[in-house]
Amino acid sequence: MAKKLWGGRFNKALAKDVLSFTSSINIDKTLAIYDCLGSIAHAKMLGKAKIIPAKDAKKIVKGLKSILTSLKKGTFKVDKGFEDIHSNIQYVLTKKIGKTAGRLHTARSRNDQVVTDTRMYCKDTIDALIRSITLLQKSVLGAAKKYVTLVIPGYTHLEHAQPVLFSHLLLAYIEMLERDKERLEDTRKRIDVLVLGSGALTGTTLPIDRNYVKKLLGFKYLSRNSIDAVSDRDFIVEFLGALSIISMHLSRIAEDMILYGTKEFDLIEIDERFCTGSSLMPQKKNPDVLELIRGKTSQIYGSLVSVLGMLKGLPLSYNRDLQLDKEPLFSSIETINEELKLLAGLFASIKINKKNAGKALKDETIFATDIAEYLVGKGIAFRDAHDITGKLVKYCEKHNKNISTLDIKELNKFSKCFKKDIFARLNPESSVRLKKSIGSTNPVFVKKQIKNWNKILKV
Amino acid sequence: MAKKLWGGRFNKALAKDVLSFTSSINIDKTLAIYDCLGSIAHAKMLGKAKIIPAKDAKKIVKGLKSILTSLKKGTFKVDKGFEDIHSNIQYVLTKKIGKTAGRLHTARSRNDQVVTDTRMYCKDTIDALIRSITLLQKSVLGAAKKYVTLVIPGYTHLEHAQPVLFSHLLLAYIEMLERDKERLEDTRKRIDVLVLGSGALTGTTLPIDRNYVKKLLGFKYLSRNSIDAVSDRDFIVEFLGALSIISMHLSRIAEDMILYGTKEFDLIEIDERFCTGSSLMPQKKNPDVLELIRGKTSQIYGSLVSVLGMLKGLPLSYNRDLQLDKEPLFSSIETINEELKLLAGLFASIKINKKNAGKALKDETIFATDIAEYLVGKGIAFRDAHDITGKLVKYCEKHNKNISTLDIKELNKFSKCFKKDIFARLNPESSVRLKKSIGSTNPVFVKKQIKNWNKILKV
Amino acid sequence: MAKKLWGGRFNKALAKDVLSFTSSINIDKTLAIYDCLGSIAHAKMLGKAKIIPAKDAKKIVKGLKSILTSLKKGTFKVDKGFEDIHSNIQYVLTKKIGKTAGRLHTARSRNDQVVTDTRMYCKDTIDALIRSITLLQKSVLGAAKKYVTLVIPGYTHLEHAQPVLFSHLLLAYIEMLERDKERLEDTRKRIDVLVLGSGALTGTTLPIDRNYVKKLLGFKYLSRNSIDAVSDRDFIVEFLGALSIISMHLSRIAEDMILYGTKEFDLIEIDERFCTGSSLMPQKKNPDVLELIRGKTSQIYGSLVSVLGMLKGLPLSYNRDLQLDKEPLFSSIETINEELKLLAGLFASIKINKKNAGKALKDETIFATDIAEYLVGKGIAFRDAHDITGKLVKYCEKHNKNISTLDIKELNKFSKCFKKDIFARLNPESSVRLKKSIGSTNPVFVKKQIKNWNKILKV
Amino acid sequence: MAKKLWGGRFNKALAKDVLSFTSSINIDKTLAIYDCLGSIAHAKMLGKAKIIPAKDAKKIVKGLKSILTSLKKGTFKVDKGFEDIHSNIQYVLTKKIGKTAGRLHTARSRNDQVVTDTRMYCKDTIDALIRSITLLQKSVLGAAKKYVTLVIPGYTHLEHAQPVLFSHLLLAYIEMLERDKERLEDTRKRIDVLVLGSGALTGTTLPIDRNYVKKLLGFKYLSRNSIDAVSDRDFIVEFLGALSIISMHLSRIAEDMILYGTKEFDLIEIDERFCTGSSLMPQKKNPDVLELIRGKTSQIYGSLVSVLGMLKGLPLSYNRDLQLDKEPLFSSIETINEELKLLAGLFASIKINKKNAGKALKDETIFATDIAEYLVGKGIAFRDAHDITGKLVKYCEKHNKNISTLDIKELNKFSKCFKKDIFARLNPESSVRLKKSIGSTNPVFVKKQIKNWNKILKV
Repeated sequence: MAKKLWGGRFNKALAKDVLSFTSSINIDKTLAIYDCLGSIAHAKMLGKAKIIPAKDAKKIVKGLKSILTSLKKGTFKVDKGFEDIHSNIQYVLTKKIGKTAGRLHTARSRNDQVVTDTRMYCKDTIDALIRSITLLQKSVLGAAKKYVTLVIPGYTHLEHAQPVLFSHLLLAYIEMLERDKERLEDTRKRIDVLVLGSGALTGTTLPIDRNYVKKLLGFKYLSRNSIDAVSDRDFIVEFLGALSIISMHLSRIAEDMILYGTKEFDLIEIDERFCTGSSLMPQKKNPDVLELIRGKTSQIYGSLVSVLGMLKGLPLSYNRDLQLDKEPLFSSIETINEELKLLAGLFASIKINKKNAGKALKDETIFATDIAEYLVGKGIAFRDAHDITGKLVKYCEKHNKNISTLDIKELNKFSKCFKKDIFARLNPESSVRLKKSIGSTNPVFVKKQIKNWNKILKV
Repeated sequence: MAKKLWGGRFNKALAKDVLSFTSSINIDKTLAIYDCLGSIAHAKMLGKAKIIPAKDAKKIVKGLKSILTSLKKGTFKVDKGFEDIHSNIQYVLTKKIGKTAGRLHTARSRNDQVVTDTRMYCKDTIDALIRSITLLQKSVLGAAKKYVTLVIPGYTHLEHAQPVLFSHLLLAYIEMLERDKERLEDTRKRIDVLVLGSGALTGTTLPIDRNYVKKLLGFKYLSRNSIDAVSDRDFIVEFLGALSIISMHLSRIAEDMILYGTKEFDLIEIDERFCTGSSLMPQKKNPDVLELIRGKTSQIYGSLVSVLGMLKGLPLSYNRDLQLDKEPLFSSIETINEELKLLAGLFASIKINKKNAGKALKDETIFATDIAEYLVGKGIAFRDAHDITGKLVKYCEKHNKNISTLDIKELNKFSKCFKKDIFARLNPESSVRLKKSIGSTNPVFVKKQIKNWNKILKV
Repeated sequence: MAKKLWGGRFNKALAKDVLSFTSSINIDKTLAIYDCLGSIAHAKMLGKAKIIPAKDAKKIVKGLKSILTSLKKGTFKVDKGFEDIHSNIQYVLTKKIGKTAGRLHTARSRNDQVVTDTRMYCKDTIDALIRSITLLQKSVLGAAKKYVTLVIPGYTHLEHAQPVLFSHLLLAYIEMLERDKERLEDTRKRIDVLVLGSGALTGTTLPIDRNYVKKLLGFKYLSRNSIDAVSDRDFIVEFLGALSIISMHLSRIAEDMILYGTKEFDLIEIDERFCTGSSLMPQKKNPDVLELIRGKTSQIYGSLVSVLGMLKGLPLSYNRDLQLDKEPLFSSIETINEELKLLAGLFASIKINKKNAGKALKDETIFATDIAEYLVGKGIAFRDAHDITGKLVKYCEKHNKNISTLDIKELNKFSKCFKKDIFARLNPESSVRLKKSIGSTNPVFVKKQIKNWNKILKV
Repeated sequence: MAKKLWGGRFNKALAKDVLSFTSSINIDKTLAIYDCLGSIAHAKMLGKAKIIPAKDAKKIVKGLKSILTSLKKGTFKVDKGFEDIHSNIQYVLTKKIGKTAGRLHTARSRNDQVVTDTRMYCKDTIDALIRSITLLQKSVLGAAKKYVTLVIPGYTHLEHAQPVLFSHLLLAYIEMLERDKERLEDTRKRIDVLVLGSGALTGTTLPIDRNYVKKLLGFKYLSRNSIDAVSDRDFIVEFLGALSIISMHLSRIAEDMILYGTKEFDLIEIDERFCTGSSLMPQKKNPDVLELIRGKTSQIYGSLVSVLGMLKGLPLSYNRDLQLDKEPLFSSIETINEELKLLAGLFASIKINKKNAGKALKDETIFATDIAEYLVGKGIAFRDAHDITGKLVKYCEKHNKNISTLDIKELNKFSKCFKKDIFARLNPESSVRLKKSIGSTNPVFVKKQIKNWNKILKV
């Protein structure tokens, strides 16, 4: 029984080093279950269309179902002596049901078979990823609820900008993640296409029923051009693009958390469970999980670069280079999925040092924008208000004073418009409470958003 | 009159080298028109909401409209002494209408302003790109119609695989391009969000009306979180991702055309207009446009890597790094748009050497799959049919014979199932005509597809 | 006995999902032998410097040597329950020699330990790669010798440019590969640095003897700054850069061979051993090895992008992100090494279709440059000579004639300088033989180069 | 007078859109001076070798020299109607000296000409970059001398690790930059090759003297293979690789400085000159220069990806794609050079808040490693010492105590080996002073290193 799906025209066997270099079984074994499912549908169709005898079709389906069972049980042994998982399954099927197995590969090529498997895998994976993202969103939302009115310094350029609600920052993360789900949903549309029946590149002379296979496998669309069907790897690039953005989001969240967890910021505490120690320095508790999430982002980027680069300038239709689409995709999906779950756990156990948030807001220059807008309210043009406040800040820095320690006279040197009500503005809580714009950090808006997310995420 | 939008708290002027390093005006001048449009809407809203006096709002709008006119006429002189186009326009506005201009920047920050401008630019750009893609699709469709029944060798691994219609290959290009349009449409959904009114990161204490601005500027959605609004550059990554895939498609098409145009393949002739010569070799006519289309793909990839890398691990909210999102996007859009138009011209003038297509199909091993499927039709299991045909091919190669020169007796040594009707299969035209599957290269299907595209592309 | 090298200050155990996410043992097991060698040297030094008792040092060394033996034999069982290979080896050592093992990690940190291991691994690897490159160079040189005077069309823009010796093209490959070796040698200089003794980042208060360890491990330089020593991953980026260039070279060579092997070029024949067949198309013999070599190039690029991206903006000194330097490096090295060996085999068995080389040179426009230079020899300015020849080519194309079929009168319409001796130029062999410049395709120069390479490569 | 260096065989003019797409003059104008210098040498050689009349050679040289003068003065007007700078200069030369100019392009092609120009440019650029790096090193060294004994917290994982000298950290930067110079020097070796005389790909039939040109232009090596000479862009990839590492270094330094400059770390103060303000928030002083240095790193990476991707799978010899090597290189060089100079200025004006350094070291867990090594000095195995100290740290954290507030009895609960001398260890100055290893943060070693750098950098 041959180990390869070809060979009639060859004189020499494939050398070991060549097999090991060209083989993909170590990677495409991930597709085993989908390969069985796809083959079952294909065999049913071949029988129904009378391309192969009905009883042969039944025999093949039965054989494949028993392989499927062993795959699900984990008892199927992948044999690395094969070129790919397709050959391996074909071989096992032949061992099970004999020569009839030789009818399965009628009217199809590995070119359309492997893309079908991959598309099935991608559809399932997108479901799983969306579940994991939702899990993380819920966990972040939980933290937002817990600390809903806590004010912290908001940062731009990593410098104190304006006071914000910690919960408002957390809701920003949820927004980012929501876009990630939308992007995956959009990607799915271009994945959900049955390409089986395209043959190697031209279709087939046998009377196959592609619509039937499409229905059996639950695909939404049917590919319209056989050459495109076997050459197209757009959906993998698009998927990796979506994963790259997710990864980038997680790296930004991780960076925030690493910074807020330093001794210097001291705003949050990461649970020990997500930290590791040092072999030399006994006191260390390092945020390794967050660092690895940050670091692995460039691995995902590298995977995207790898597939994009592989496809550049590749003539139509199939070329062997295309085999290299899988490892970058599979490993990226696994990484992102792990990260989403770990981060969900991390946010569920995060602790906030409320006191430090207060301390960090003692420097009143953080209210400068509020002061400028106060002046606008008194009729001053914003540009002048900005200038007045800038000079006030410079004055305070020079004299090492806080703004609230100045009296009205001193303030009036900068602008006559300053009245006593200015002092009420120099306060984190009122700073956020006075915000009026939709989407702002005003607690009223933020609580509304939380309610909104409760609904969307079905919490 | 100050050249900067800040400075009250600073003692020293920005040094020339620092200005030149941090300035973005050379790049964001592309946004000038959108900046005016955005500011006009903002000013109208400030007046309507009585945040600034109604007559000031009118004055500002009038001034901005006159700047807009000069921008459209091309008479506006960008001054590279400014940090960015926003400062430049603000300065010109002040020169035109005096101190009132100082009220324009009320309740907004450059953080939300620049993203608003960029999103407006992206929306327009997507429209333009979709028009250019359609132009190219129509041009390719024109060529497909012209050569609709011409059979050429279909390639996998750049080796002869099976006969295909040249028009079928061209329709594969149209499919690829159609997905590109879908992807741009999906990207647009995440671009079409008004972020103005988010301030630097927290919103504003002034009673702005964001829904009014949204209506004026024709945005579909309103951002819900001010921190996310100024930090988010997903839409640029996603746009660059879509451009990368377009570029990859164009590189594959270019590679096909370069190959088919070589002396060796000699299947197509590129119009001289898209070729250049050599300074040394007088006979040369090189397909430079196609080569540059292929080569520039990695520039687009580089742009994607650049923006992804910039965003990795960036803490929320705004950081100056974000300024570097524009050049890669703008230059990629320009490149792709040029390429689409050039390729449309190239396909409109492409010529096919029909004779050579015929010559290339003389080697009958290209019918091997048809032969194997013929045997399946006679009841042989595909695996055996594949093996029989493989041996037949090996035999012909060894004896340097073409299959049709064998007689039935010789053929029957390989399988008794070979009958005289096999010879009718050894023919390019019948090979494509006998294909039965949806999406195959059968001329009937291909013509249907052409009709279908006529409708979709409104030819 | 603890599985981790830290933990005194921790309350909770590392969760399974966290361990699986943070663990590197699947990858750094590659370093096992180097870890033992490094530890042996470290232990000897600790003993010699009396930081630990001499007999303890001996016991540790003995234990490590026995582990080393089992590693070399392949009997050491890596246990994936450990964080990394260092912890695993430490644990096995403790099992072997008891508590004394606890003295080994004195005055070092995993931060300096892992970099030491990696540098040792890199040094060995560079030796192996250089051997493999030389192997490939020799194989290519063998082919060059076999076909030393065979003239083929030389290509620019994939269009016929001028006749060249096939051997001249092959020597170009050898030049490329020679630069790759130089680059590896230069990289080695920055790898060959002992960093052990830098501790976690500051050095140690214990009286270690770094020069002794350097001598024992055969390093050339001693790191001069402990912070830099644990933060620096330049050598990995530089190594990956060198590998990227090698890979790019191999992809260009593969592309040449794929093209020359097509039915259309039909210049070379790749041995079956490096090809595979099709599951559907019985006649196929595809150059899969070459395609995968081409395709895997972008994987190497992706690895480079991954490590560069990981390092961007990383604060000094050690961060856990740095752990992600290994997988991209290790996998790239393995790929390149395999490819070099496979290509050496491929070139050793390559066959040339000499006849087709001749046929391809029948179109005499390929001699256009020779004709122009002929005219320069007659005193015509090159620019005019170029123009004359260009018009001559156009004339021949229009009238579908070959240049040698024109008589002198016809030629003199283009230039009076054409004499009968021009016809001797329209010949591939004389075209190459008449080349006069150093480095040209003149067989005399080429043979000299072959001799030169014989010496350099010690053939 | 023609604007192109080819055209005899063409019927149609190059369309405007095609010219604009294929033209490189906007970019390769950077090479203008080198193009003149290269042409001067080439013309001299042509005259000397009697390939063109001596008086023509002189005339050409004189013409070129006058163009060179106008280029240096800045009066040469680049005309974007040309394909490239070479055509532009040729045209201007013809205008100056008439038809004789038509002899200049004898025995060369733009293929070898442009690589020659680029290599000359690279050599000069490397000199300039090395000067800029040295400038930065000196500036950093100046800061190290100023704050030579200041102790700050040393970080791993951005967590407090062990006390280090601030000067030791700065010296780490100098080490990184020194490697960058070495890498550039190594790259230069592979740049310093004269390729002129290789023609389009085969050399020339004219009796050129390549060694003479090599001498005139000051190249070190002569290319040995004409095909390789025009196809090779390794040196550009290698140069971009070196620039990527420099950029990565600068991004790490920038990140350190951004962090140390935050309100939370508050360790350094960046001079106002390198900061900018906010259009909305009057108090802001943002470290924009540092942020852009960090951000631009991914632009350099993108450039590397762009050129690597362009070269992948490109058949030998010249293809038009190769033209795309220049923009990424030129722009990267300019960016890095600017950054080096700006950072030199930034470090020259940096200020340290010494007081905060002291405050940050108040938490004595930072001495944990010193304590463990103290115990090793008392004969305890390191592993036990690590464990003891870990528990001590946990105890202090739980009871919210600093280690020095415990008395010996309390300490002896953790280990009997603790004696009174332990308290002397709980001190930043003694922590660094007690370091004994070469390369450690001991002030004695650090001062030695400073002296060493004084010598190397010729301060």
